[in-house]
Amino acid sequence: MTQVEGPKRSGEKETGRLEGFSDGIFAFAITLLVLGLRDPVPTAGGNLLYGLFSEWPSFFAFFTSFLTILIMWVNHHNMFNYIKRIDTRFMFLNGFLLLFVTLTPFTTSLVADHILLSDAGTAAGVYSGIFGLLAVAWNVLWRYASKDNRLLDNAVPDNQVKKINHDYNFGGIFYVVAFFLAFVNGLTSVIVILIAAVFFAFTALRGPRVPDEKENGGPIGNNDYSQPETPG
Amino acid sequence: MTQVEGPKRSGEKETGRLEGFSDGIFAFAITLLVLGLRDPVPTAGGNLLYGLFSEWPSFFAFFTSFLTILIMWVNHHNMFNYIKRIDTRFMFLNGFLLLFVTLTPFTTSLVADHILLSDAGTAAGVYSGIFGLLAVAWNVLWRYASKDNRLLDNAVPDNQVKKINHDYNFGGIFYVVAFFLAFVNGLTSVIVILIAAVFFAFTALRGPRVPDEKENGGPIGNNDYSQPETPG
Amino acid sequence: MTQVEGPKRSGEKETGRLEGFSDGIFAFAITLLVLGLRDPVPTAGGNLLYGLFSEWPSFFAFFTSFLTILIMWVNHHNMFNYIKRIDTRFMFLNGFLLLFVTLTPFTTSLVADHILLSDAGTAAGVYSGIFGLLAVAWNVLWRYASKDNRLLDNAVPDNQVKKINHDYNFGGIFYVVAFFLAFVNGLTSVIVILIAAVFFAFTALRGPRVPDEKENGGPIGNNDYSQPETPG
Amino acid sequence: MTQVEGPKRSGEKETGRLEGFSDGIFAFAITLLVLGLRDPVPTAGGNLLYGLFSEWPSFFAFFTSFLTILIMWVNHHNMFNYIKRIDTRFMFLNGFLLLFVTLTPFTTSLVADHILLSDAGTAAGVYSGIFGLLAVAWNVLWRYASKDNRLLDNAVPDNQVKKINHDYNFGGIFYVVAFFLAFVNGLTSVIVILIAAVFFAFTALRGPRVPDEKENGGPIGNNDYSQPETPG
Repeated sequence: MTQVEGPKRSGEKETGRLEGFSDGIFAFAITLLVLGLRDPVPTAGGNLLYGLFSEWPSFFAFFTSFLTILIMWVNHHNMFNYIKRIDTRFMFLNGFLLLFVTLTPFTTSLVADHILLSDAGTAAGVYSGIFGLLAVAWNVLWRYASKDNRLLDNAVPDNQVKKINHDYNFGGIFYVVAFFLAFVNGLTSVIVILIAAVFFAFTALRGPRVPDEKENGGPIGNNDYSQPETPG
Repeated sequence: MTQVEGPKRSGEKETGRLEGFSDGIFAFAITLLVLGLRDPVPTAGGNLLYGLFSEWPSFFAFFTSFLTILIMWVNHHNMFNYIKRIDTRFMFLNGFLLLFVTLTPFTTSLVADHILLSDAGTAAGVYSGIFGLLAVAWNVLWRYASKDNRLLDNAVPDNQVKKINHDYNFGGIFYVVAFFLAFVNGLTSVIVILIAAVFFAFTALRGPRVPDEKENGGPIGNNDYSQPETPG
Repeated sequence: MTQVEGPKRSGEKETGRLEGFSDGIFAFAITLLVLGLRDPVPTAGGNLLYGLFSEWPSFFAFFTSFLTILIMWVNHHNMFNYIKRIDTRFMFLNGFLLLFVTLTPFTTSLVADHILLSDAGTAAGVYSGIFGLLAVAWNVLWRYASKDNRLLDNAVPDNQVKKINHDYNFGGIFYVVAFFLAFVNGLTSVIVILIAAVFFAFTALRGPRVPDEKENGGPIGNNDYSQPETPG
Repeated sequence: MTQVEGPKRSGEKETGRLEGFSDGIFAFAITLLVLGLRDPVPTAGGNLLYGLFSEWPSFFAFFTSFLTILIMWVNHHNMFNYIKRIDTRFMFLNGFLLLFVTLTPFTTSLVADHILLSDAGTAAGVYSGIFGLLAVAWNVLWRYASKDNRLLDNAVPDNQVKKINHDYNFGGIFYVVAFFLAFVNGLTSVIVILIAAVFFAFTALRGPRVPDEKENGGPIGNNDYSQPETPG
């Protein structure tokens, strides 16, 4: 290893450990969601099959949260295709994002348990509100990293950064809508969040592929993303 | 690091983070299974030793799920001996696979608590059904990656890919059988899943070794797997 | 890879695995905190919104512990910017640090459940006491590593090491104060710990940036940290 | 990256992912131990401080298990200083080792809850029995890897391998003793396991350092381990 390669390797290790810690929290939060699923028989008695169907709010909330956190993780992963170095401030901003991620198992079980009750609106408000704060944390994190290419690979062009800014802004709107809808109808609010997740998934799948050949300047610095996503 | 090495390193980092996130979920799900094991005395009273024996369905379900997830992980690990790059679509397909993995602690405790009751069939149906969906997710994931060598190392020969396709198809049959057996006898259905896990473990152990020297083209591109598994 | 590079790579892999294991424990402990948050309605009945407000000690303790563990992780991460190799003794000392980290979900729920009761002092004493022991473990770990540059990069200058020693000593004072305050007023004691966390966060953000270009000797071996934290 | 380096890198990645998955399970199991610690007041009422002291079996079992798993992890880490490649069989044997690791939170809470009751012997027997099986799994794993240098770095000398075999055999004796002692006195049995953990920790700390410069052939292939553990 030559002297010259030193800083680059070092920078990669730094983002590597932040990514590993974040992945741990994403993976753990997404797996803890399963604790919100319960055997209905010991509390409600009756038939297991019928009981499982009557537990549909738990499965509905589980699936909505799973998909939302999965998309967050995919985005976190893709964001680090652009980010080449981190600093302490970035680590704390990322920590705030993770704070809202770890709250998800709590808000999910809250919404599952109350969505059919009279206080469904409160539960859905908390649920969508935390996702809304997560979207804010996301925007702050990305803007901090991308401001004047602060932490980005120098090769990322300005209009690519602007496009991502725009996408993140647009994404936050769903959670604002869901939050205000919660005061009208709790269930509808959660459905909006599920729709948002499905929408983001399709956008990610159909839109331009985040280039993973970042270092050789191929796809980055090149606005023609019209070719099909998969190579060959 | 030269310009030329860039894309390769970058590609490796990408699959690395997906593997790390997946490993985290596999590891958490497999460890969360332990929460399904309970001290029998506080609820049932009586002698601890006798109580532990009477809790055998919990241990039986724990072991079956542990072995099944372990095999899934070994397969996931081996699959990435062939996969050289990932895209967003692959990340979501992998996410669906992980969805069913995270459901396992729930379905396992369901089967443990009901296998001796009259609704054992329902519990076993849910248990084997989720594993069946997991097998489907597995097939979709692999076919997506291997179609026209989309995400594979170019060096993987077609007949090797076809052989793996065939093995995965065959593997799914066990879960279909277990699912339908659940409606006849719940316990037998779970036993079939345990047999499947043991069978897969033996196949993995006795069959051809997945080559781990993928990059130098040694074992890959070479159909002679008859040599003993261990080098030397 | 030449013979000469061998030991360096190997050393890096070693610290890598210790960092990964530690990150896992930090990530799990921080995520397990969420299990301390509960739906207030099933036990206390009444209105969900009002119930959530009345659960403020849980959220307060959750946030204090989250921020404290996050700062610990940021410090652990930054410490490994200096540490270039590990030995068995270091692995055990690091294990003691992690022991106190894993206790945090327990002490956090203890403080959340008792902070409004007559025994708030005991709960706050345990809470701040464990953080105090964590600060001691931290100091022992760093002093072991930095004594005569035992495990550090040779390029770290003595006065940099002394500065860090001083910062760690200073940090521990907060927990000593909080511990003794617990016997006067439990809530005030926890507030001191929250203030400590906010203080450390600001110090980390405003103070000199831990250099992440450690290997090329740039910022290290150079006492001029007056430049702004972010490059460019 | 040249053709020639391929297999080496690939081999490293393989052991890397196995190590990461294992670290996840070790870290998660060690963190889940905290769920065995409970606030004594809601069930037993009374004074919190007194209640925490009366919960000493929980803390005693927590600490014993924490230290034991920590040592297992340190050993697992050190074992991979020798192991250079893995195969499917090794992955399954490692899986069995992890099976017993994931059982630890269950056996720990069992021993904590029963150590003062008349069935303490049964609980201690299960606790030490699982650790005994873990020791067996450990021996099988190491012997499989080391037989004829199957998966080891070629540079590991025979007498070093024999020394490790001998140490592992000796280690298992503690758990056999603890298992049989359980039928005489449960508490004594657990104390033996704690003594074993302390003994192993001291052995690891005072004994010869596992060489971490494996690749340049320095300490390995060299029986003189009499120099002090820390470099310089």
